[in-house]
Amino acid sequence: MKIQHQASIRAYRAGGFIGTYQRLVKDVVIPYQYSVLCDEAPDTEKSHVIQNFINAGKVLRSKNGGSAADCGDGFYGMVFQDSDAAKWIEAASYSLSIFPDAKLESTVDSLIDIIAGAQDEDGYLNTYYTIKDRDKRWTNLLEGHELYCSGHMMEAACAYYEATGKDKLLQIMLKNMEHIYRHFITERHEGCPGHPEVELALLKMYRVSGNEHCMELAEHFINTRGVDPHFYEKEKEKRDWSVWGNSPTETDYLQASAPVREQKDAVGHAVRAVYLYTAMADFAAATDDKELFEACRRLWESITRRRMYLTGGIGSTVHGEAFSVDYDLPGGTAYAETCASIGLIFFASRMLENELNGEYGDICERAFYNTVLAGMQLDGRRFFYVNPLEVVPGISGISPTHRHNLPVRPKWYACACCPPNAARLISSFGKYAYGENADTAFCHLFADGEISLENGMKFTCETKYPYDFDILYRIERGGRLAVRIPGWSRTWQLTLNEKTPDAADITLKKGYLYLTVSDGDTVKLSLDKTARFQYASPKIPELTGKTAISRGPLVYCFEGVDNQGDVLSLSLQKEGSLEVSAFQENLLGGTVTITVDAFRTDAIDELYTDKAPGAKPCKAVAVPYYTWGNRGENQMRVWMDAT
Amino acid sequence: MKIQHQASIRAYRAGGFIGTYQRLVKDVVIPYQYSVLCDEAPDTEKSHVIQNFINAGKVLRSKNGGSAADCGDGFYGMVFQDSDAAKWIEAASYSLSIFPDAKLESTVDSLIDIIAGAQDEDGYLNTYYTIKDRDKRWTNLLEGHELYCSGHMMEAACAYYEATGKDKLLQIMLKNMEHIYRHFITERHEGCPGHPEVELALLKMYRVSGNEHCMELAEHFINTRGVDPHFYEKEKEKRDWSVWGNSPTETDYLQASAPVREQKDAVGHAVRAVYLYTAMADFAAATDDKELFEACRRLWESITRRRMYLTGGIGSTVHGEAFSVDYDLPGGTAYAETCASIGLIFFASRMLENELNGEYGDICERAFYNTVLAGMQLDGRRFFYVNPLEVVPGISGISPTHRHNLPVRPKWYACACCPPNAARLISSFGKYAYGENADTAFCHLFADGEISLENGMKFTCETKYPYDFDILYRIERGGRLAVRIPGWSRTWQLTLNEKTPDAADITLKKGYLYLTVSDGDTVKLSLDKTARFQYASPKIPELTGKTAISRGPLVYCFEGVDNQGDVLSLSLQKEGSLEVSAFQENLLGGTVTITVDAFRTDAIDELYTDKAPGAKPCKAVAVPYYTWGNRGENQMRVWMDAT
Repeated sequence: MKIQHQASIRAYRAGGFIGTYQRLVKDVVIPYQYSVLCDEAPDTEKSHVIQNFINAGKVLRSKNGGSAADCGDGFYGMVFQDSDAAKWIEAASYSLSIFPDAKLESTVDSLIDIIAGAQDEDGYLNTYYTIKDRDKRWTNLLEGHELYCSGHMMEAACAYYEATGKDKLLQIMLKNMEHIYRHFITERHEGCPGHPEVELALLKMYRVSGNEHCMELAEHFINTRGVDPHFYEKEKEKRDWSVWGNSPTETDYLQASAPVREQKDAVGHAVRAVYLYTAMADFAAATDDKELFEACRRLWESITRRRMYLTGGIGSTVHGEAFSVDYDLPGGTAYAETCASIGLIFFASRMLENELNGEYGDICERAFYNTVLAGMQLDGRRFFYVNPLEVVPGISGISPTHRHNLPVRPKWYACACCPPNAARLISSFGKYAYGENADTAFCHLFADGEISLENGMKFTCETKYPYDFDILYRIERGGRLAVRIPGWSRTWQLTLNEKTPDAADITLKKGYLYLTVSDGDTVKLSLDKTARFQYASPKIPELTGKTAISRGPLVYCFEGVDNQGDVLSLSLQKEGSLEVSAFQENLLGGTVTITVDAFRTDAIDELYTDKAPGAKPCKAVAVPYYTWGNRGENQMRVWMDAT
Repeated sequence: MKIQHQASIRAYRAGGFIGTYQRLVKDVVIPYQYSVLCDEAPDTEKSHVIQNFINAGKVLRSKNGGSAADCGDGFYGMVFQDSDAAKWIEAASYSLSIFPDAKLESTVDSLIDIIAGAQDEDGYLNTYYTIKDRDKRWTNLLEGHELYCSGHMMEAACAYYEATGKDKLLQIMLKNMEHIYRHFITERHEGCPGHPEVELALLKMYRVSGNEHCMELAEHFINTRGVDPHFYEKEKEKRDWSVWGNSPTETDYLQASAPVREQKDAVGHAVRAVYLYTAMADFAAATDDKELFEACRRLWESITRRRMYLTGGIGSTVHGEAFSVDYDLPGGTAYAETCASIGLIFFASRMLENELNGEYGDICERAFYNTVLAGMQLDGRRFFYVNPLEVVPGISGISPTHRHNLPVRPKWYACACCPPNAARLISSFGKYAYGENADTAFCHLFADGEISLENGMKFTCETKYPYDFDILYRIERGGRLAVRIPGWSRTWQLTLNEKTPDAADITLKKGYLYLTVSDGDTVKLSLDKTARFQYASPKIPELTGKTAISRGPLVYCFEGVDNQGDVLSLSLQKEGSLEVSAFQENLLGGTVTITVDAFRTDAIDELYTDKAPGAKPCKAVAVPYYTWGNRGENQMRVWMDAT
């Protein structure tokens, strides 16, 4: 039983919490990010993304006899600068499929025309190399990001084609794919990208186009990785140039220490890792490759059982933006890049194609409602790359080990990977929330909206999730419904047309509840509304003696602004009550706070003392982690002392 | 009232705990380190220290018409390799003053002859530059370590002269000093060392030789620092070579952001910092420079009130082996270099010359009995540079942020600064323990042994400190006795000839107890024997909710070997009893353990759970921090959860 989650929803209109975010992306994030690509955003680092494509086009048109002056002001930005345009087109495409918008569509069309002009005759497409030095093409897979940029543009092409039916970008990228095919399969038959991404994109493009070369190339890149662990070192020796001068060829960083089927632990650069694993899982499902799936499962468990924050953040160390070792999950120096959690959601969604299991949706929610949403300011205008679980002004952002842990979101980065990545995920939330096969609708995540599937089923979902835990499905066209019961929901109730169905009519299997529904039925699922204390494995040194709070999929945190400016001296009462507030429309974009019985430890004048400090009972107020840092610089802590 | 602590003890023979360490240094450390200097230690990294001096001599003898082949196998090692010889001679000298040893003295004499041969006609002495490129002399104060090496050799010269009366090395270093004087005062009048050290050494040599140029040079180097914060950048621009290629010219790293009298926070490389502050405090006392002393006091408070571990470790970050910001004191990623705590003791000892205050001795003890002693394996054969307060095998030494935190002591390092530094401090413990002025004997630290002072006072001290807290002084030649009452001792009792003296006869001032003693008197001080829980300021994020244990000056830690292999799941009972064991002769070189009421948290299978883990009452056993890591790789923790 294969479940398709990609390209399977003919129309999905989201309302509720997710819909609000999708409108924010449409109204604020997409226009703002476009102004950045055009270098028209005020007080923002120069991007030059679109100008790079224009300049590359000029170089190509003057190729025979042209001079350097022909490329305008040349190339500016990161070697992977092109991917910002791709991720923006992808986000815009998903947004267009929810909110048709002729003006936006026309903007995308114009950008695609510019991109078309930057494609070389042989299909090659990358402004860095086209402008700077065409002879260097494909000589630096370690750092070059050519395949990475192609991958993102392939994803954009698929998304735009699906949203609009227009195939100009798809044809550009199929031509680009054939160029890559010739280089890597026909001529060379070696090498795979330093930064995985093209693999998962090729699988998407295969589904959209049916072109077998996409599949063959994806297979090549997946199967080649790690077979020769010294590939990147050898490549480095062959060339006399470098992008960054000191790029690591450590094979763990590149997930290239062993063939992918033999890999056991999630290692190296976290975004690279989960992009690779996503493709591996997708390929395993598409080809029924059990050995590859087993490897994916091992890597999944390595991440989610030993190397993941409570917030779904992964890649705990700034050194290489990478996974550390098991249980090394420091809060104040966490890296936990927004993009890595986005990639973890991709990985989970492809694992679902292999195996229907509630834990994949659990992790999707954990990553999305906490780290991914925390990556974006509530107004959609500023972003975090790095998502620490503790912030102490005076240390965070300043101490040498905390320089990357900023206490408030900056505007835009020279390396602009996370903001458009968050935009494309939010806009395509429906693809992750729902899936289908011939006779069943899968509700992996809870998202208010209208759902019409290719299998003919049609229904609406009404919910204020993640702030209310009643989910009402109104069935327009019936069939079989499979609804995930989240692992965190200790209790749940289900009614079919307001009555408890016969036990024989429902099945619960691996976290999913199955029942048959008919046209006009209403199904109501009520999940656990209570707030819960969280405890960590004592194998995590940083978290012994600590407790956190969550409700539904939301992890909570304590900020100074709600707690007299000082959360470090708060200690939660172990058997204390957790009071859940009413929904507060005007707080942090609309939220629910949790008030906890706590003690406040008296100040100590000395650095160390042998006099036990006193403590007074008090109340401590927690807000959802994703809302932190929206009220100025202040202390923030997820894991609290417990007394 | 000036207190001299240097060169004031005509003879000090230590017994007891310190004497045992001094014998270990004599019997094991000094011979082993000499074998390293000679490249004769088995399974040890090549040192080449003595060969460098021999080769430099060859270069000098063939200077006119000689070729590269004349310098043997050239220079090998760090740019500051010479200082290993210097620190070894200094340690050997202190040891000789306690334990006369004709063979060792003859070894030192031979080494001094070799060093003499490596000195250039103009007084210059540095094997790195003499062998590699004499034209580079004095062009790289940032990295060059020429003044650093000279400083250590000056300290060695003073120590050897004081121990033996032989002045050959002293004359070599006075000649070297005159060379430096000509270069920095007569000819150039600018520049100060990248790594402070020569300043404090010049002040020592001034005391021994009375040569005013020493004083003038020390003053120049102290007063020049930070006046032009861009000095090292400008110097870097003038030359086309570098020792390490990427040495930071950040002025904070170099304590050169502002003139020393204006500096407010202890910043940068911790060893450099405390070596500088030592010289500043020494110079302030020698010249009665109140403004400089005020700066020293600010820096002292910056360290001891906001930037120091419970163990007296300083320099909390591996980045630049440096001070971080206030209250950033992580245990598992601590740097806390052994040498930095040694330097902190130097600084404290010079602060005592300015102001008699018990807190200086308190910090000396904290640093010595914990970090400095932990730096050396109990058998004297292996060493830690880095002294973390928490070790978890699987993370420590492996995780990218914990690579420097080794779970067991390695044998010898390519950069061998700490082992000989520890050896010279231990051998000269008496200089820090006792001081004098015209009519008073100052007992800053408690060290069993015989003490004869230049003021004529003579007495013995009998104590099993730091394991027993009775200190008995038997007065042979009386006078005024000033004994420090440690800040940690909540209670104390004093008897004079077994009777409580009249209150009028004793004075307690700034942590020192003063009384007049006559020939034949016995004074017995009984300090607080109880074990104490320790608490940290809640401003230290890492330590909220934690407690530690200490007794006397000893900080305790919990190791896996005493606690079922797992200290992470132990939580100490807040009002629990602390049972102090009898002295255990055969445990860890002879020690006292402390058994604490605790709970052991049940294992949790998941990474995170909402089920509160159970906990069972148990006993937890602590050993002194300085003894950790002597029984193989295992978990270690100083700060424990408290329930």
